[in-house]
Amino acid sequence: MNKVGIIMGSDSDLPIMQQAIDILKGFDIETEVDIVSAHRTPEKLFDYANSAHKRGVSVIIAGAGGAAHLPGMVASLSPLPVIGVPVKSRNSIDGWDSVLSILQMPGGVPVATVALDGAQNAGILAAQIIGCSNPEILTKIIEFKESLKLKVYKAAENVKNNL
Amino acid sequence: MNKVGIIMGSDSDLPIMQQAIDILKGFDIETEVDIVSAHRTPEKLFDYANSAHKRGVSVIIAGAGGAAHLPGMVASLSPLPVIGVPVKSRNSIDGWDSVLSILQMPGGVPVATVALDGAQNAGILAAQIIGCSNPEILTKIIEFKESLKLKVYKAAENVKNNL
Amino acid sequence: MNKVGIIMGSDSDLPIMQQAIDILKGFDIETEVDIVSAHRTPEKLFDYANSAHKRGVSVIIAGAGGAAHLPGMVASLSPLPVIGVPVKSRNSIDGWDSVLSILQMPGGVPVATVALDGAQNAGILAAQIIGCSNPEILTKIIEFKESLKLKVYKAAENVKNNL
Amino acid sequence: MNKVGIIMGSDSDLPIMQQAIDILKGFDIETEVDIVSAHRTPEKLFDYANSAHKRGVSVIIAGAGGAAHLPGMVASLSPLPVIGVPVKSRNSIDGWDSVLSILQMPGGVPVATVALDGAQNAGILAAQIIGCSNPEILTKIIEFKESLKLKVYKAAENVKNNL
Amino acid sequence: MNKVGIIMGSDSDLPIMQQAIDILKGFDIETEVDIVSAHRTPEKLFDYANSAHKRGVSVIIAGAGGAAHLPGMVASLSPLPVIGVPVKSRNSIDGWDSVLSILQMPGGVPVATVALDGAQNAGILAAQIIGCSNPEILTKIIEFKESLKLKVYKAAENVKNNL
Amino acid sequence: MNKVGIIMGSDSDLPIMQQAIDILKGFDIETEVDIVSAHRTPEKLFDYANSAHKRGVSVIIAGAGGAAHLPGMVASLSPLPVIGVPVKSRNSIDGWDSVLSILQMPGGVPVATVALDGAQNAGILAAQIIGCSNPEILTKIIEFKESLKLKVYKAAENVKNNL
Amino acid sequence: MNKVGIIMGSDSDLPIMQQAIDILKGFDIETEVDIVSAHRTPEKLFDYANSAHKRGVSVIIAGAGGAAHLPGMVASLSPLPVIGVPVKSRNSIDGWDSVLSILQMPGGVPVATVALDGAQNAGILAAQIIGCSNPEILTKIIEFKESLKLKVYKAAENVKNNL
Amino acid sequence: MNKVGIIMGSDSDLPIMQQAIDILKGFDIETEVDIVSAHRTPEKLFDYANSAHKRGVSVIIAGAGGAAHLPGMVASLSPLPVIGVPVKSRNSIDGWDSVLSILQMPGGVPVATVALDGAQNAGILAAQIIGCSNPEILTKIIEFKESLKLKVYKAAENVKNNL
Repeated sequence: MNKVGIIMGSDSDLPIMQQAIDILKGFDIETEVDIVSAHRTPEKLFDYANSAHKRGVSVIIAGAGGAAHLPGMVASLSPLPVIGVPVKSRNSIDGWDSVLSILQMPGGVPVATVALDGAQNAGILAAQIIGCSNPEILTKIIEFKESLKLKVYKAAENVKNNL
Repeated sequence: MNKVGIIMGSDSDLPIMQQAIDILKGFDIETEVDIVSAHRTPEKLFDYANSAHKRGVSVIIAGAGGAAHLPGMVASLSPLPVIGVPVKSRNSIDGWDSVLSILQMPGGVPVATVALDGAQNAGILAAQIIGCSNPEILTKIIEFKESLKLKVYKAAENVKNNL
Repeated sequence: MNKVGIIMGSDSDLPIMQQAIDILKGFDIETEVDIVSAHRTPEKLFDYANSAHKRGVSVIIAGAGGAAHLPGMVASLSPLPVIGVPVKSRNSIDGWDSVLSILQMPGGVPVATVALDGAQNAGILAAQIIGCSNPEILTKIIEFKESLKLKVYKAAENVKNNL
Repeated sequence: MNKVGIIMGSDSDLPIMQQAIDILKGFDIETEVDIVSAHRTPEKLFDYANSAHKRGVSVIIAGAGGAAHLPGMVASLSPLPVIGVPVKSRNSIDGWDSVLSILQMPGGVPVATVALDGAQNAGILAAQIIGCSNPEILTKIIEFKESLKLKVYKAAENVKNNL
Repeated sequence: MNKVGIIMGSDSDLPIMQQAIDILKGFDIETEVDIVSAHRTPEKLFDYANSAHKRGVSVIIAGAGGAAHLPGMVASLSPLPVIGVPVKSRNSIDGWDSVLSILQMPGGVPVATVALDGAQNAGILAAQIIGCSNPEILTKIIEFKESLKLKVYKAAENVKNNL
Repeated sequence: MNKVGIIMGSDSDLPIMQQAIDILKGFDIETEVDIVSAHRTPEKLFDYANSAHKRGVSVIIAGAGGAAHLPGMVASLSPLPVIGVPVKSRNSIDGWDSVLSILQMPGGVPVATVALDGAQNAGILAAQIIGCSNPEILTKIIEFKESLKLKVYKAAENVKNNL
Repeated sequence: MNKVGIIMGSDSDLPIMQQAIDILKGFDIETEVDIVSAHRTPEKLFDYANSAHKRGVSVIIAGAGGAAHLPGMVASLSPLPVIGVPVKSRNSIDGWDSVLSILQMPGGVPVATVALDGAQNAGILAAQIIGCSNPEILTKIIEFKESLKLKVYKAAENVKNNL
Repeated sequence: MNKVGIIMGSDSDLPIMQQAIDILKGFDIETEVDIVSAHRTPEKLFDYANSAHKRGVSVIIAGAGGAAHLPGMVASLSPLPVIGVPVKSRNSIDGWDSVLSILQMPGGVPVATVALDGAQNAGILAAQIIGCSNPEILTKIIEFKESLKLKVYKAAENVKNNL
């Protein structure tokens, strides 16, 4: 019953945002994916953000690029935690616009911002938020962190063997 | 009957935005001033932007700072030209967040952005837009530009006399 | 009788600026295209900017890159609203020079700046300015915004069907 | 039983971080405050981050400035969601170092970053995370958002009455 | 007979530009000071730049801030070497706009740019340019460089005596 | 007898610096080209800069990238005007290091900085400096500026014919 | 018996860090290479940094990208000099995050930072540090600097012969 | 017999550089302080850098601001490890010029760069370098790190007692 809503401003953001979908699938957490453009479908944005917490969504992940208003506007309307993914879109100025227009929210309306194009981390963070009250997911997070560790140990072995 | 709507995200933006009010008063153009916060009063933002063109507003000037979503969201909802004033608010990162989150709008939804804290220029631009179809205002713009010129000539005299 | 003047500093800016020409054609708004270099043809810049409003031009769109002085110098000379398009030209420092030298105009001489390489938005903004006094164009803007919405709805369907 | 751990790299960060303490007190959420320096007390950092989830902490807020490693290192060690507050400390380069060294975490280890000096928003975000599974807190968040709205409406009245 | 023209966009630039006047006075080089605003007095800019080389000016120093078009436009019109001084004016974004809009001139039209607020260096550079063909001035430059050296040697003595 | 010294920090700068050589050849101005590395051949730098004005060099053009100390160190040692070309070398951070380490010289020691990779403009500026005291070169500069103008007029014709 | 520890946050950093390994091999200085991720293997980081000086390591070179905490955390735990190499990794924002999160260490815990991707210089610096107390290595450094000089002299000959 | 040379470009850098002097005094390491300006006393720079390793200096700390060439030029001439302190001098562009012109050294000539105004850390790093071959100093470093820890523990107690 802990669903994660994943929205993005344009289908061109999907290759990045897919990483959030995939990692949450790996944690067996249900996702609900949609395209919601703050600037082209403002009414859909309103409906989405006003209703998400009423239909079982616990956390919202919103990705957008350039002057990226989607995460902040969803956070304006929804009482849920909103994770913002700054996407380095085609016309972005090296990603700075995406980062600053998501991160620098005014007092009262936070967006939990992750790294530029960091959709995988957005998925993990959503799982951690659910894990706060769900010991099963918390255990999976702990196991996931172990798996990261093992990959590094293997890579270290490889590098040392090949010097 | 050419009214300019002037809105800002917070009353702390008023000292800057007052420059737009004053310059438009100087052109005898009617203004309508309000505080509309994209993040704290999203419904008011929707109502404002959806209705402005129906009640005689020709141009909207919107000022905001930090992750400044007000100008872009108004532009999303209104068919009118929207002028954005990036305000260097207290928590802004030297104004870069304000500038980039207003300027870098995606294709389809322009915001006519002026300089950081450039509310006076926003007012002049609004007058120029009205002047496109109003010869009286166009004449005032031409006179205003002459007055700028004269001030520089006087300053030049002063400087040369005091060297 | 509402003509939009579209000028650019170099023919290398044409691929970007063509987007403004195309979108205005879509609104059935007449355009007048020319190359005017602030730095290589300053006399032409003067003639152009001094005369545009006298021969039926309502709005000027000026695109340039690097130390981009064309939009600001046209705004200095013409009483018309000037829309500036910062072009990320070959020698630009990631577009920052183009953006800042167009956006940061001093008090008294505004340039309505759009996003880096945002010539399509410059065209839409010009149409919105004309739409202030031309209900037919205003209606076309409203329809255009509807069409953007529909494209997003279709993209959303596509994405949801292919997950 | 939903405790929020609030840590900071130095007592000079307290004036900023106090905002997180205060807002959480307003939501009747228990906090646990400590100074933990990644660079001066790395062992304490390890102990803190390894044990927090075992003693009833649900969310960790970590504030630091300059090359700010505290939030990321806690996120490395703890399975809990970690909220990072970039602090514009005395020697920071206008806050850019604080922001980038907290935000730009590698894949696998997210930090939920808020705005520069945005400790109040960190507190609200922590409450929202707890609110995901605690309807009482969720209701308080909704009420808090209403209170923000009312303040803006009052400010708008004030401004309109004083023009 | 080697006169240096010193112009600036506004009398608010005078405190900075005075340094150029003073250093040139120290070299006994004649200066001609004026206020010429690219954006407020474009015709004066044209007259100034077109005529300077015809009335005995050898080098032009132009200082301006924000979207600073004065040095580049003078360079566009005059065959003389133009030295640009980026001024960190009140509304400048930390001086970046001033620097980039003067420095990043397109191929064909150079501006010899000095450091932000570096008017003293602009004066020295003008003297060096005149010194290319004037052995007396070249000698003064060499002496000036010696005097800089002596000041550092004295400062070094002071510091060592007071440790 | 007005020779221009052209030096660069590495032979990898030659493709950029060749533009200075070529443009000066076009003005029939003698050049003297060498590789002088501030960091790898400091003694050669000293000899070069100390002796240039004694063997008929009038102006020095120095190009370098990254932490680019060549132009500033030559300016430290030579009484001649030094033109600095910031080169966007392979390891440069988008050219910012090259620009700032050449432009931001302290009071007393100017470097006439041109745009990033702006070696052609460095050559033109050197010609303009020589033109201050050489009417023949001044005439060539005026003709060169005319030729730039004609190219833009032709490009404008082309664009207008092909719309 | 002067060993240099070379660690990096990920095997994707190896192509850059290999330059440090190679240059130290050229100085006949023993290296010890490993992958240690601050964020994925924090315990290994602790063990590594706590023990290095006890097993004959004199200097540690640590390379990492993005929010790069490895060099600073090693410096936090080890009394040895730590050289940090900011790596421009795939998700880095043009390298700025890597540079600032390594360079801007708080008072008390220095990291000797080299240029972006400057692993070769990290190796040379490590050799210079060892050379402080090892005359043989100091001599090799002096010879190495001579060899750099000779390469530039040869390049200069080549360029001059091919103009 | 392990002396640290501390030089700075101007006596205005002394308030910052004093921190390096003080911390080294605390470690009982001899220092030798001087003003050496790369741009105003280039011959002194040459003499200093060429001779330092011959008269018992082990490490050089060089502080400078703006286009800061002192650390890099010393590193060019001396085989010793050179620590660079970017100073945020009066005319610096927020310190970026100081940082980049010291940090971004080309391959072959490293400068061990510390944080902006980080002279204290430069002193500690110099001590660590000497500590590589001097067990007494190494012990002092370990004790110094313990003292930092204790200060944080005390500050933590204070903060917890005063909440």
